[in-house]
This record gives sequence, C-alpha cells and structure tokens, in this order.
Amino acid sequence: MTGPSTLTDPAVECPAGSPVTDLPEVIRHTMQNAVMVEAGSDALQAAIDHHFRSPGGYLRARLGYHTASALGIESHHAITVASISELLHNASLIHDDVLDRDTRRRGQASVWHQWNEGVAICLGDLFISAAFGLIAGLDTFASRLPPLITLVHEHVRATIHGQLSSLSPRLHASDRFRRYAEAARGKSGPLFGLALEAPLVLTGHHEARMNARHATGAFATIFQLADDIEDYDADMALDPEYGAGNMLRALERISSEPLPRARSYSDLLLARSQRLAGRLPAASGTALTDECDLLRTRIHGLTGASG
Amino acid sequence: MTGPSTLTDPAVECPAGSPVTDLPEVIRHTMQNAVMVEAGSDALQAAIDHHFRSPGGYLRARLGYHTASALGIESHHAITVASISELLHNASLIHDDVLDRDTRRRGQASVWHQWNEGVAICLGDLFISAAFGLIAGLDTFASRLPPLITLVHEHVRATIHGQLSSLSPRLHASDRFRRYAEAARGKSGPLFGLALEAPLVLTGHHEARMNARHATGAFATIFQLADDIEDYDADMALDPEYGAGNMLRALERISSEPLPRARSYSDLLLARSQRLAGRLPAASGTALTDECDLLRTRIHGLTGASG
Repeated sequence: MTGPSTLTDPAVECPAGSPVTDLPEVIRHTMQNAVMVEAGSDALQAAIDHHFRSPGGYLRARLGYHTASALGIESHHAITVASISELLHNASLIHDDVLDRDTRRRGQASVWHQWNEGVAICLGDLFISAAFGLIAGLDTFASRLPPLITLVHEHVRATIHGQLSSLSPRLHASDRFRRYAEAARGKSGPLFGLALEAPLVLTGHHEARMNARHATGAFATIFQLADDIEDYDADMALDPEYGAGNMLRALERISSEPLPRARSYSDLLLARSQRLAGRLPAASGTALTDECDLLRTRIHGLTGASG
Repeated sequence: MTGPSTLTDPAVECPAGSPVTDLPEVIRHTMQNAVMVEAGSDALQAAIDHHFRSPGGYLRARLGYHTASALGIESHHAITVASISELLHNASLIHDDVLDRDTRRRGQASVWHQWNEGVAICLGDLFISAAFGLIAGLDTFASRLPPLITLVHEHVRATIHGQLSSLSPRLHASDRFRRYAEAARGKSGPLFGLALEAPLVLTGHHEARMNARHATGAFATIFQLADDIEDYDADMALDPEYGAGNMLRALERISSEPLPRARSYSDLLLARSQRLAGRLPAASGTALTDECDLLRTRIHGLTGASG
C-alpha cells in the first residue's frame, strides 16, 4: 500500500559513543536519513538528492553540536538535536527561494527553478516535519521532550513571522536602521537561538535560555549585516531606493561613513553576544564565542579595517 | 525582542474532565490556539483569522476524538491528539491551493489569492509546526511521545509523496482505474489513518495500527471518489481527456455504466473498511464505521441508487 512505512528511523545511525570524525558528513547523513523514503514521488526524491549535493556550511548544526557536547550530551544525541535547527533552516531557504523567485542556491539551480513550485513547497514541508521527527530519536530524555517540542514550535513560529515581516512593504520603504536590524534578527535569530536553546532545554538548563536567545540574536543581526554588505550591489539593483531592506543602505542614509559605522555596530553587538555566551553553563557558549571571532574578522575584512 | 514568546501553551485550554458540549467549537479553539501569536506579521494574523472563519467539517478531528475517547483518553487530551491530523489536513489544503492555483476554498477566497503566495506558504508551514507543537500538551503520556512523533512524521511524509504523485503527468495520462484509486488513497489516506492511529499509539495499541491504516485507506479512497463524482464536470473542463485524475473518468474508460460501477466499488471498499474497523480494540472503530454508513448513503445518492 501507499501508506507510510516504518523502515526509516529518525534517530541518527552513527553508533552511540563513537567519536565524530567528520562532523559535516554525519550531519548531512542525519538530515538525509530524516527525510528519506523507500517509495514515493520520484520528483521529490530527486529534489532531496539535488538539495543535499550542495547543503551549505551547517553553521547552526555545528553550533548546536558543540553546545550539546559541552553540556554532556552523548555524541549521537548531540548530532540529532543539532540537526533540528539545520533542517528548519534548510526548509526556510527552500520556501524563501519560491517566495523571492531566486533561481540559484549555493551554486546550483534552486529547487523550484529546477522542478517547479509544487516540488519546492512539498520539499520544505518535508524538512519541517523531519525536524520534529528527529525529536523521536531523543527518547532517553523522555520528560524533557514536551518542553523541547514547545521550544521548536515557538522558534519555527518566530522564524515564519520574521520572514513575513522582513518582506513587508512598510519595512522596505523605511529609512530607519533600527527597523532593518530588528527584521534581520527576527528572521535569522530564532533558528540560531534554537541551536543553543535546544541542548539547554534537553539538559534542564531552562534558566539559561534567555541569555542564549539574546546572544544568538545579536550574532544573527551581524551575520545578516555581513551578508547585506556582500549583497549590496545586487540588492540596490533590485530596489535603488531602499536596497530591498539592505542594512548597509540604511546606514548610508544616516551616516557619511557607512562602512566604519557597520564595523563599530558589529563590534558592539559581537562583544555583547560573547559576554552573554560566556555566562552559559559548562562553557557551552564557547562555540558561539568562536563564531563571533570569525564573524568579526569577516566584518573587518568587508569594511576595510586593517586588524 | 522579536524572538519567540512562551505565553502561548500548545495544550488545549478546556478544563480537564469537563464534557465537550460543542465539539467543532472546541476543535477550532484548539487549532487556533496552537497557531496563535501575540506579535508578528499582521498579514499572517489576518490570514489565520480568515482561514478559521470557514474551517470545514473537521471530519479527521471528529474521527480522532471519538477514537481517542473510546480508548479511554481523557477529553482534553482526546481533543489535542485529534487536532493534530486536522491541522495537517488544513496545512495541505492551504499549500494545495497555491499549487493548483485554486482561487476559492470553502466559499471564500483562498489564502494565496486573498494575500499572496508568501503568506500562504508561511501559513501552511505554521500549521505543520503547530500540529507537532500540540504533542507537547500530551505530556502525561511521556514514554509514548517518541513513537507518536515518528508516526506523525511518517504520515506527513506519506501525504506529501501522495500529493506529488497525484500531480504526476504519468498518472494524468493513464487510463488505469487502479492507479487513480491508489493515488486517491496515497493522498488522503495518511491523515485519515493518523486520526485513528495516533490515539492507538498513545494508548499502546501498536498492534492495531495496521488494521486502522487499511480501514482508513479504503475509506479515504471512496471519500475521494465521492468528491470526484461531484467534481466531474469541473475536472473534465480542465482536462477533457483524463479529467485531471478524476476517478469517475477512469471508470468511464473501462465500463459503459460507470456510476453503478462506482457504487459497487464503494460498497466493496466501505464493507472492507467497516470489517477492519470492527476489529479495533475497545470498539474504537465505531466512529469510522458510522462515517462509512454516511459515505455509503452519499455515494448511493450521487450514483442514483434508490436505497
């Protein structure tokens, strides 16, 4: 019959306790396994294979994995919880490309462009469902699963609202930098937040969630600013007045030196992010702190700073 | 900050143990609560309100509620588990309307037509996430949540594959009735299956799942056939050769008396569904059996049978 099968297990297949030698490969395997099917639509299977051929840098999954490991979560469970936010991030990219009519994604055709809108909408839906499906693999944390499920749904909801708010014509006709920064955080912040908060909730550190959320929110804002500096020309070609919500364009309107302004704003927020990350239990904010250092270097490079 | 809030609880608000006097109203309230937000995109909030203004007959939720109640699940938990498949069904309708460019849904404008594709894609995503979010409200069943999560993801996956397979050009250029029937079951069967299987899994009746799945699969096939008979003219206008996958059109190609043929096929499958439903524990198949009776009457009316 065409109904669902029980052959695929959402839990990761790497043996418990074994060290992870190739983290990106194990993450890819975990995500691909979570969306896998034995039989079904050929187009969807082809789109899954296509998507995983160029799956990105796994920043959210890497942050989640190192945070979980610092909190004492065993390797294969750390991989599972870390893949949740990564799958949701990929779902949002696949659906965003439909919304924005982007024909390219990570050096190849976007899913809707290669197939059609229907395949892309269905693939994104499958990724969202698979993200929740992974939670079943965390069955040794039984009593913590309800708060984890609530957390994941909250962050999906926030990402969706952030995504739609960032498309709002009101935003794109505004010259207020603060609005642009809030939109950037509203769209990217929740899934970075989930990467850290999910392992915290799984280990009972509910009180640390707010620090993690503010730390990742500040990081996400600057992460988006770096992208906006790189995409400045493309965004201005799309919308010569407001740069389609580009944060550098908003800085230009309030400052004669937008790049130094972007740099000092980044330094401020990244320092805040690192200060908050430093307060997380069991040094679990170290991975985020390291990513802040990398992002600071990237921003300094983009804004022409020497050091 | 724009991040997620913890104010909304995915659990249903009706007091534990209270009798449900207005089932559709309680289901609507539960679903609306699960997707609720305090702040976020105005367009998304407006689309939520619009959607719930005309939310359908709640067939899946009603089947789920009565199945759960028969299995001894307390009223407010029965409502919660029953709303899972209903939210997923609504998500699929919202996304299907984008795919099919349907401008009307239940007597009002479809979401993508009233707003745009972005709002409709985001709203469907939110409904999928909210369906899983409801599982957090079932925290008294802690050890059963992992298999329930796996079950929900399996059925979402099957629905997505069924949806895409039913859009396949190969299907629409086929004259084989069996293929049409399989496509109908593949698309509608999983969420009817989930309505019964979720309460069974929650009460530990794993062994009864397959009977429930086959019983709902047969029911779903005839449920789709009834729709196809009603939509015959519209489907033929769309695709004069194959009726865009219309099952009655496929019967026409193998029989000079397609309506009596549809009737006898329905009688066969509905009897099978009722036979399998009768084997479910604690008479939990009674709700499905009753719906089979109603569907048989509807089919007999549509095919011109007298009794």
